Amino acid sequence: MSGPLEDPAGIDRTDPEGEIARRADAYRNWGRWGEHDVLGTLNLIDDATRVRAASLVREGVSISLAQSFDMNGPQKGWRRRTNPVHTMLDTGTDAERGNQGFPHGIGGADDVVAMPLQCSTQWDGLGHIFDHGMAWNGRRAGDVVTSDGDLVTGIEHTASAMVSRGVLLDLGRFLRPDTGELEDGYAITPVDLDDCIAAQGPSSAVGRGDIVLVRTGQLARARRDGWGDYAGGPAPGLSLSTAGWLHAADIAAIATDTWGFEVRPNEFDVPAFQPLHQVVIPNLGLTIGEMWDLDALGEACAARGRYEFLLTAATLPITGAVGSPVNPLAVL
Amino acid sequence: MSGPLEDPAGIDRTDPEGEIARRADAYRNWGRWGEHDVLGTLNLIDDATRVRAASLVREGVSISLAQSFDMNGPQKGWRRRTNPVHTMLDTGTDAERGNQGFPHGIGGADDVVAMPLQCSTQWDGLGHIFDHGMAWNGRRAGDVVTSDGDLVTGIEHTASAMVSRGVLLDLGRFLRPDTGELEDGYAITPVDLDDCIAAQGPSSAVGRGDIVLVRTGQLARARRDGWGDYAGGPAPGLSLSTAGWLHAADIAAIATDTWGFEVRPNEFDVPAFQPLHQVVIPNLGLTIGEMWDLDALGEACAARGRYEFLLTAATLPITGAVGSPVNPLAVL
Amino acid sequence: MSGPLEDPAGIDRTDPEGEIARRADAYRNWGRWGEHDVLGTLNLIDDATRVRAASLVREGVSISLAQSFDMNGPQKGWRRRTNPVHTMLDTGTDAERGNQGFPHGIGGADDVVAMPLQCSTQWDGLGHIFDHGMAWNGRRAGDVVTSDGDLVTGIEHTASAMVSRGVLLDLGRFLRPDTGELEDGYAITPVDLDDCIAAQGPSSAVGRGDIVLVRTGQLARARRDGWGDYAGGPAPGLSLSTAGWLHAADIAAIATDTWGFEVRPNEFDVPAFQPLHQVVIPNLGLTIGEMWDLDALGEACAARGRYEFLLTAATLPITGAVGSPVNPLAVL
Amino acid sequence: MSGPLEDPAGIDRTDPEGEIARRADAYRNWGRWGEHDVLGTLNLIDDATRVRAASLVREGVSISLAQSFDMNGPQKGWRRRTNPVHTMLDTGTDAERGNQGFPHGIGGADDVVAMPLQCSTQWDGLGHIFDHGMAWNGRRAGDVVTSDGDLVTGIEHTASAMVSRGVLLDLGRFLRPDTGELEDGYAITPVDLDDCIAAQGPSSAVGRGDIVLVRTGQLARARRDGWGDYAGGPAPGLSLSTAGWLHAADIAAIATDTWGFEVRPNEFDVPAFQPLHQVVIPNLGLTIGEMWDLDALGEACAARGRYEFLLTAATLPITGAVGSPVNPLAVL
Repeated sequence: MSGPLEDPAGIDRTDPEGEIARRADAYRNWGRWGEHDVLGTLNLIDDATRVRAASLVREGVSISLAQSFDMNGPQKGWRRRTNPVHTMLDTGTDAERGNQGFPHGIGGADDVVAMPLQCSTQWDGLGHIFDHGMAWNGRRAGDVVTSDGDLVTGIEHTASAMVSRGVLLDLGRFLRPDTGELEDGYAITPVDLDDCIAAQGPSSAVGRGDIVLVRTGQLARARRDGWGDYAGGPAPGLSLSTAGWLHAADIAAIATDTWGFEVRPNEFDVPAFQPLHQVVIPNLGLTIGEMWDLDALGEACAARGRYEFLLTAATLPITGAVGSPVNPLAVL
Repeated sequence: MSGPLEDPAGIDRTDPEGEIARRADAYRNWGRWGEHDVLGTLNLIDDATRVRAASLVREGVSISLAQSFDMNGPQKGWRRRTNPVHTMLDTGTDAERGNQGFPHGIGGADDVVAMPLQCSTQWDGLGHIFDHGMAWNGRRAGDVVTSDGDLVTGIEHTASAMVSRGVLLDLGRFLRPDTGELEDGYAITPVDLDDCIAAQGPSSAVGRGDIVLVRTGQLARARRDGWGDYAGGPAPGLSLSTAGWLHAADIAAIATDTWGFEVRPNEFDVPAFQPLHQVVIPNLGLTIGEMWDLDALGEACAARGRYEFLLTAATLPITGAVGSPVNPLAVL
Repeated sequence: MSGPLEDPAGIDRTDPEGEIARRADAYRNWGRWGEHDVLGTLNLIDDATRVRAASLVREGVSISLAQSFDMNGPQKGWRRRTNPVHTMLDTGTDAERGNQGFPHGIGGADDVVAMPLQCSTQWDGLGHIFDHGMAWNGRRAGDVVTSDGDLVTGIEHTASAMVSRGVLLDLGRFLRPDTGELEDGYAITPVDLDDCIAAQGPSSAVGRGDIVLVRTGQLARARRDGWGDYAGGPAPGLSLSTAGWLHAADIAAIATDTWGFEVRPNEFDVPAFQPLHQVVIPNLGLTIGEMWDLDALGEACAARGRYEFLLTAATLPITGAVGSPVNPLAVL
Repeated sequence: MSGPLEDPAGIDRTDPEGEIARRADAYRNWGRWGEHDVLGTLNLIDDATRVRAASLVREGVSISLAQSFDMNGPQKGWRRRTNPVHTMLDTGTDAERGNQGFPHGIGGADDVVAMPLQCSTQWDGLGHIFDHGMAWNGRRAGDVVTSDGDLVTGIEHTASAMVSRGVLLDLGRFLRPDTGELEDGYAITPVDLDDCIAAQGPSSAVGRGDIVLVRTGQLARARRDGWGDYAGGPAPGLSLSTAGWLHAADIAAIATDTWGFEVRPNEFDVPAFQPLHQVVIPNLGLTIGEMWDLDALGEACAARGRYEFLLTAATLPITGAVGSPVNPLAVL
């Protein structure tokens, strides 16, 4: 399924501009769903996909793929990204003490959260990344995302989209059967993806409209050893060379258990930052999930030898948002 | 299905304390799922329920039941509840102008939200309401919800729970076929619920583990006429006399298209505030949804004559939260 | 002291572009304090000014000129401006109940605020307003204020600046001795300012480096009758025709007791918005204060027949901010 | 000036309860300013104090004592304390690009901050600390600070109070003339304070109503070496044994350049936390400032051999706050 441009030696580590442009040009989906499109590859999920996805529920086991949302998360302030700050407007302590002034013994607790939309388990919207000042579908970035938010491709447009067949590709378990964890800096190639599918068997065949979940195992390591540089630091992840694979597969979306989806450090010897994002979000129109917790799902799939399931991962429709926190549910 | 205590004349409008206590005593589920329980009636959703729910997906149509999350919402500051404030950390305008300093033409947009967890479409957690200083399952409120959040029944415990059969009871359409909207102050009784089910037909039979959605039509009115007093003001909603019905039905959760679930003003001639909440959250352990947008779903169900569907409504697992914003998806 | 361009009939109500440009050209201070300047007219406060200001303290009476900062403020959500949302991280209730886990009986309370910097009593920084894409001192707006904040003239540069002689011009009391309140829509002219100074006597003579406080009385009315349209609606305030007066006076800063400093509606019959801001902030480099509470100060000055005092109004040095909440203190 | 209970050997390092209780009993000011008092030792600033303070302005030099308020601050998330998160509602980039839709070429920038009130340079209010469930003046903590904030001694009551004579005691420079920096863990004793005053000369004599600033030099070290454990870690600071000195001196308030005012680790061999806070805030009613930047002031005072000045340090009157960010100004 890998694209024509991709081979293991295919990346010139001194030329991110060229490597990105070559793939952006080859795999650009602009106009594919009309000039007014705001969904990109999410268009590949149709009613039939959802019927088929629902039919995958056999046991009724529901698994949340969300990390927790709290101050114990990985954010350290880079680019003003903090962990979520959750505070109470009213408490049980005040209710019990009679401080609230409500009648007939009723008491209440309310709360507030302040958080970056990219702080924990999340979807990146189509307005999250730009390529040379251009956003998804060939729009100028400044026409799309201003300080008023994403005026065109805001996450609210995806409100009903995120139901599909999910497929887990457990690269950690496949490539490192002993530990289940890829080492930081490991670049997952198209061959790795295809080999993993072959090894896992037919239930993990990837097709049109699927939401693919790539487990690297890094989160298990972070959970064990502490966050360290989880946010922004070295990590296993997809190689830039998977761009063609992602395009050819016609998937609707993809998510990983890492902070940044693609391998870190990025695959260049000169300054570079998230080149695969630059290719796939504004050019392919691919929605990306990050910091998903795929460990319990990995266990469940391995135990069953079955890697497909109903996946619902509804965005929170914050008007104009370029991303969304999410609690994805896999139902097996 | 209505409980033994309930009859139309059953509410002494001068005695909220007594009316609440009578129902709390009669319908209290404390201990039903063990002394350490943190889920209440969500325990009634089991694997078989989820398999059956998934089997209801026939056409693959996905409908979001969320209102938008933005400054155009209904909140006016009461109890420090504001609409969500969404701000950008980075914008497309800055990316396009070359202000971001990233290499090889990549640009990005990030964002932040500050919002009450009860500001828009939401779940009320079990720590949201107390009865005489007591929380769900017989715990002291001050042992459960402190200024550090809900230490026991925080919303994170529900992370994988919210997948079940959904049933729409379109009381607005049933009782007011001309407008589809119940008038403010209309108290929905157990008889109304039973009659609606009978009229809608077998697909709306309510049973164990279901998530019941009650459409009053008030949101359609607010959308047309402006929010007015939507937040906290007069509204159609469930009568206190439905407490027994809710208990007997063994449903997992219930949600409405109004701000406050129950009828407003409340059914007393003396000061009262949300008595049905006081009975069902801390005593029954019932999870309640509010401000759900049930209009498109109402259209879809009426058109099909079918009122059941797969419902996923995953909470955002903010550690210690007493509620959660939610984007519920009905898949028909 | 009024400028050469200003006369009562001087405003062509059909031509805001022209009226603004004429004044911007005439009163532009760009380069006056060097090409790297970040303070504008605040440069006019020097050490001698501060010595003289301190010498005005005779009785030692300190008067706060701040409105309260809470949910009872005037903001209603326009441009995402809310009132301040203050929440507790820890409470006395929890401390008293023994919920905090600290040793030897110590307990604590902490808190958090989320607020627009322009929500209540405030200073507008030099990055708050632009004229045709240009910021103070002739810089391009996009070189100055990005989504990272004001990179050049951020409010932090004013951290030590806000100490000077304060002068109250109580236009409300002078023009409307019966009520002390100018009516909404009243445009204060240069003649009004000069007449008020003459009437109040020598202590209100305005000079280089002063911070001038203009009391309209509108806040007293809002306090009595409710906020109404205080935020953004009709208000008394300075006429566009005062631009020359403000330039000629060489004052360091000016503040009023209204939401928007200048008269509302603005003085044009075609769409217009805050034209005096457009002239004086980016062109003169004048710092403006809004929503100051000048009522107690007005009483105190009137009682003494003395309208000058030490004024300290330190900005909160939030890096890159384009404004600051402030608690100004007048010491008489 | 040291109190009768204090001697260098006076602290039993195994008995924080006893050591705290002994001092709390000896120095308790409850009732001193009437049963309704909300200001504590700030009552000691009167009009005469302010006249005298203003008379100390000789050169008109204004020095800000605030740290910056931004993401580069010392907070790391402990107790949900983050650095301030400042975001833009509108930007110059959008204004320059014509994205804002305002008439006649006006453009604007607005901003928002979310921050703990104790995140940077701050005042601790009287509701910030409790002693065995009791707040200042003998009130029960749960009657004072609920989840609605400080209902009694909220920081808004101090709005006009913070103008007085400031005195710098530069302990860093006095005790460590070579480096100007006390080492972490150094406990400043009453003798140190008295000796420093003697060495600095008569301008640093401390008296009734003064605001005393104690420079340890730790902030200079943090600025040079990185924040490290500045927030909550080891630090020089006042010894518990200064409680009597602070009481006897009748000062209005005190501030230091450290995170926590008192020496860290605290002076006990068993678990202890901020015992001097526990004595002086709820018992003496002393207002404490933390994280003040006293380095420039230290230079200025040393150069002049004069350690007294006009100090204004107005709180931001957030209703019900238990603390306030502050930009203190020393005017020499």
